[in-house]
Amino acid sequence: MANPVLVEMVRGSLVESVHRGSFVVSRADGEILARSGSIDTPVYPRSAYKMMQTVPLVVSGAADAFGLTPEHLSLACASHSSEPMHTGRVSAWLEILGLTDDDLECGPHPSRHEPTRDAMIIANEKPRRAHNNCSGKHAGFLTLAKHLGAPTEGYTHLDHPVQKSVTEAIAKICRVEPAHFIPGTDGCAAPNLAMPLRNLAMGFARLAAPDDLDEDMAEAARQLSAAVAEHPLLMSGTGRACAELIEASGKRALVKVGAEGVYGGIIPELGIGIALKIDDGALRGAETAITALLVALGVLDAADEAVRKWLMPLWLNTRGKTVGEQRPASLLLKPIDV
Amino acid sequence: MANPVLVEMVRGSLVESVHRGSFVVSRADGEILARSGSIDTPVYPRSAYKMMQTVPLVVSGAADAFGLTPEHLSLACASHSSEPMHTGRVSAWLEILGLTDDDLECGPHPSRHEPTRDAMIIANEKPRRAHNNCSGKHAGFLTLAKHLGAPTEGYTHLDHPVQKSVTEAIAKICRVEPAHFIPGTDGCAAPNLAMPLRNLAMGFARLAAPDDLDEDMAEAARQLSAAVAEHPLLMSGTGRACAELIEASGKRALVKVGAEGVYGGIIPELGIGIALKIDDGALRGAETAITALLVALGVLDAADEAVRKWLMPLWLNTRGKTVGEQRPASLLLKPIDV
Repeated sequence: MANPVLVEMVRGSLVESVHRGSFVVSRADGEILARSGSIDTPVYPRSAYKMMQTVPLVVSGAADAFGLTPEHLSLACASHSSEPMHTGRVSAWLEILGLTDDDLECGPHPSRHEPTRDAMIIANEKPRRAHNNCSGKHAGFLTLAKHLGAPTEGYTHLDHPVQKSVTEAIAKICRVEPAHFIPGTDGCAAPNLAMPLRNLAMGFARLAAPDDLDEDMAEAARQLSAAVAEHPLLMSGTGRACAELIEASGKRALVKVGAEGVYGGIIPELGIGIALKIDDGALRGAETAITALLVALGVLDAADEAVRKWLMPLWLNTRGKTVGEQRPASLLLKPIDV
Repeated sequence: MANPVLVEMVRGSLVESVHRGSFVVSRADGEILARSGSIDTPVYPRSAYKMMQTVPLVVSGAADAFGLTPEHLSLACASHSSEPMHTGRVSAWLEILGLTDDDLECGPHPSRHEPTRDAMIIANEKPRRAHNNCSGKHAGFLTLAKHLGAPTEGYTHLDHPVQKSVTEAIAKICRVEPAHFIPGTDGCAAPNLAMPLRNLAMGFARLAAPDDLDEDMAEAARQLSAAVAEHPLLMSGTGRACAELIEASGKRALVKVGAEGVYGGIIPELGIGIALKIDDGALRGAETAITALLVALGVLDAADEAVRKWLMPLWLNTRGKTVGEQRPASLLLKPIDV
């Protein structure tokens, strides 16, 4: 059965396109406060669960051993825009480790921040691996490898000690048997572990309300949440939804995008986790859907201009005239009782 | 009811994302050879029906009066990539009309051809209106306005003589009462007329087998098909699906993309028209679906590398390793008997 329509794109008097998908709003004990669509089929979390992938960096003591700051931790959780504030910090981090750009196992790609991209073209500067939007996560993996005394080469392989720690941590957080994960490879060459959306949302809720986790893991969750709340731009980028929604919520909601239409959310003060996946992988659909859920949960105000921009963006034509709009389907607008 | 899945995106051992949609393969008399999903709800054809929008330019005698060549006619049917071969010809065309870039009512946007975009950034050259991917269509509209003795200003308004001619022509070709069109505004500021996919496919079939049209319209259809077949790069761009699929078919199939996941196809030797719409608007879904239908119709060979690239593109990560693939759903692979 098809998942329900979550987001509609309107042109003239017609709905021109739709985005279907599923979502779960969960408490740490697995209680579901709201849901829609299929939530028991495995989904790749992609970059949405980078905070979970970063837990072992803190729990292992590696972050402390190398003197990492909240800035580093936010970068480790980032899909950044390869702005100088991101790439500069990743390069400096690699220096702390005694490593270079070549040690990163993610590949280079152009910055998604247009002014940065254009400036590099004008300067004839080619993207380095540090420009990969996941380079902070990879710097974190390298830090963990060093701390574990493991070879840095091959740290993206599923059977490397780094990835074994990551798999084990995510299995604990999301209450999934490691053997039940379905592994795939992400765009940055790191493994990605598919699991039901239900478990992903519960895992986010356990990061939001970590008292039930082992104490070292709970402490890591608190540190990572604080780091992301303190430095939302380092885990995202200028003008992007994650940073802007975190700010608009007064840092009450920590949200993180993943490729192919995934979004994760952590609301510490409510002890709630959110996971959503747009079936067709559209970023625009995921952005409107996560915004609508945060409005429904009362942590964003739909009347706020900074929220409206993501909740119901207008479509302008090349002459600047409004020709349509994007809007959440009615099922996303129902207040969620917490 | 949801339309069926037409395209699947696979990562690891999972289908990560899907694109649903509907399609019609029709003869000129409306006989349907293959179909799927809802085909009677109105859909904006967007740029997929530019050849229909260009028919009045030829029928009116404007094209002949201004000495337009097949190159101009292919450009008028184009969603081009704003490469110098496109923008240079549009600017020269405006000169023939005694007009300038300012007379175009489409807005500027950066070229989608990366080398052109980058070269313009390095040269600090801002996009002009001629860089709009629809600028050829607009030059055609301006030519028609001049020929009709109508004001050039306002040629994109639905009640301007140019758009009245266009609406009338499309109504005839697609057998739709003009009052039944649902008008919207396209990204280029020109009107776009929503109609059922069934009528759009039949309209394409009538351009493919135009004997049943009025003689002047039939002649226009033949001229436009010949122009696009002769100059596929002018109606598309370097490395893009439309131009590459037309070439791969040996110019037997003329295909044209539209925004929000629309594709149209004209196969003159079979007298067949194709119209498809991906529900979520994804270009990648529309490209794989139109390729699969052309394979099913026997005008493309799935074993051809140039076809495989669009039929089942591989997903590479940033290190160049294959991490997944895109593939047509089985319902698109069934041979279509013609």
